[in-house]
Amino acid sequence: MDSLKYAVIGTGALGGFYGGMLARSGKEVHFLFHSDYDWVKQNGLRIDSVTGDFILPKVYAYKETSQMPVCDVVLVCLKTTSNHLLSSLLPPLLHPQTAVILIQNGLGNEDLLAGQLPGCVLAGGLGFICSSKMDPGHVVHMDYGKLTLGSHDGRGEAVLKRVCEDLSAAGVPAEMSDNLKLSRWKKLVWNIPYNGMCVVMNASTKELMSRSETFDLIRDLMREVTGAATACGSPILDGFVQAMLDSTLKMKPYAPSMKLDFDHKRLLEIDAIYSRPIQQARNAGYDMPKTRMLEQQLRFIQGRYADEK
Amino acid sequence: MDSLKYAVIGTGALGGFYGGMLARSGKEVHFLFHSDYDWVKQNGLRIDSVTGDFILPKVYAYKETSQMPVCDVVLVCLKTTSNHLLSSLLPPLLHPQTAVILIQNGLGNEDLLAGQLPGCVLAGGLGFICSSKMDPGHVVHMDYGKLTLGSHDGRGEAVLKRVCEDLSAAGVPAEMSDNLKLSRWKKLVWNIPYNGMCVVMNASTKELMSRSETFDLIRDLMREVTGAATACGSPILDGFVQAMLDSTLKMKPYAPSMKLDFDHKRLLEIDAIYSRPIQQARNAGYDMPKTRMLEQQLRFIQGRYADEK
Repeated sequence: MDSLKYAVIGTGALGGFYGGMLARSGKEVHFLFHSDYDWVKQNGLRIDSVTGDFILPKVYAYKETSQMPVCDVVLVCLKTTSNHLLSSLLPPLLHPQTAVILIQNGLGNEDLLAGQLPGCVLAGGLGFICSSKMDPGHVVHMDYGKLTLGSHDGRGEAVLKRVCEDLSAAGVPAEMSDNLKLSRWKKLVWNIPYNGMCVVMNASTKELMSRSETFDLIRDLMREVTGAATACGSPILDGFVQAMLDSTLKMKPYAPSMKLDFDHKRLLEIDAIYSRPIQQARNAGYDMPKTRMLEQQLRFIQGRYADEK
Repeated sequence: MDSLKYAVIGTGALGGFYGGMLARSGKEVHFLFHSDYDWVKQNGLRIDSVTGDFILPKVYAYKETSQMPVCDVVLVCLKTTSNHLLSSLLPPLLHPQTAVILIQNGLGNEDLLAGQLPGCVLAGGLGFICSSKMDPGHVVHMDYGKLTLGSHDGRGEAVLKRVCEDLSAAGVPAEMSDNLKLSRWKKLVWNIPYNGMCVVMNASTKELMSRSETFDLIRDLMREVTGAATACGSPILDGFVQAMLDSTLKMKPYAPSMKLDFDHKRLLEIDAIYSRPIQQARNAGYDMPKTRMLEQQLRFIQGRYADEK
């Protein structure tokens, strides 16, 4: 069986790390760059990882997908706020069995893309990772790293298993989820409180956890998410909230991706992380008042700095 | 009948205005000052009001209540965050019929003081006013001004009526409330959303009202307050929320008192405006999730800047 050929769309904190690890292990990986293209062409891709630093002096780098080859696996590592671009970005990369894996936060991303690219093998990926893009072509991986993959509609499981094997062989812990929806809700138990609260309070996870009021509020928000997940048919046990709190208490002070987006006045992933879960819960008859309030505060903040530009 | 003799405890945005108007009309008013004492002794008290500017070159000014005379009416215009001082500040001013009027926001202030000064004639005052202390001994009154007075326990109605007459004669619209608790809840319908949201979002009332997300959130918060009031035995009709929204839309951009406290890194009136209403509602079986979230966010913000000092 031939080796899988990979494309990475969006070579930032996640795409740079996962694609870089696969490329280092000998896989053929084609990277789409935006503003970093010239820098990477000259200097290569640099990964500073807790598991070991390395530089890939030469990578397959592109500015447009129309110049990229057809691939077996496309790792979509864009922010969800760019997903409207996917229906034009992806077609040049696809053959009938290509697996498109959305390594993104939130709910409903695969559903929207399924409507735009019917017939496509779609999957989701959930990165439990602390990493960030420090400079052009320079990713710093600070902690964790596990990637969980799950099929959107049951198709493509065989290729997803091979991707897991490739990742594991490349030094990235990877596992299959047999319930992508449940996995996405579980990730929201962390993402909903910390992403939004770090922005609204302009604080790190550690600051939020160090004061009893925000600790309690984080826990309240987590319970709203587990309640919503359960109402939507993805039951999450109560102990999961405590486990998330405990593991966050052990983390180094961390700025979630939305906090970095806020600091750089980029669009926030409000639709995927807040609005769609709230809407799905509402459709199931479950109210998320504090999550909704956080969504409203985030939209105010984003609206204000969008107006300043 | 002799003219009432007044004391003002806390000569800031409210005490300076109400006391200043009474003094200008010829009433005997004794003012307690803190940091402004020396300035006022030399320069007098200046009121710039939409109803007409004036300066009182000489006022009865004091640094300590022990030097002040016994008075018939004490207007307490301190922030509620200083109410722990009242049990020692007030006694020198009191005769058996003195009316102590707490011109303050929030719930429960009279209850706490009744425990500390048993037998005292207690009342509450609600100032519907936009004013602020701009400089030492310099109050700017920008809009509104009506003062609503109500007895805490039914005693003292006669003297409160005389205070209303004195205020009206001095150019301050004043009226009696026959239900202080209901009046306090009604004021909270405005204070709970705008005070906290202006701090957490670092915005003016106008900015909050200009974006649909925060407009909706303000309305949600108002509805929580009317629901809580009703659960606590002070029913407020639905139309009141719309009236508050409409009148705020017509206001000039405004920074509520808590926003000014935040800007100057002073203690915030979280107990009186948030914690006690939430607790009273909870005791009545009514949950205020968004108000509680706002309280938690405010305590985080206050805790953080208290630590910086």
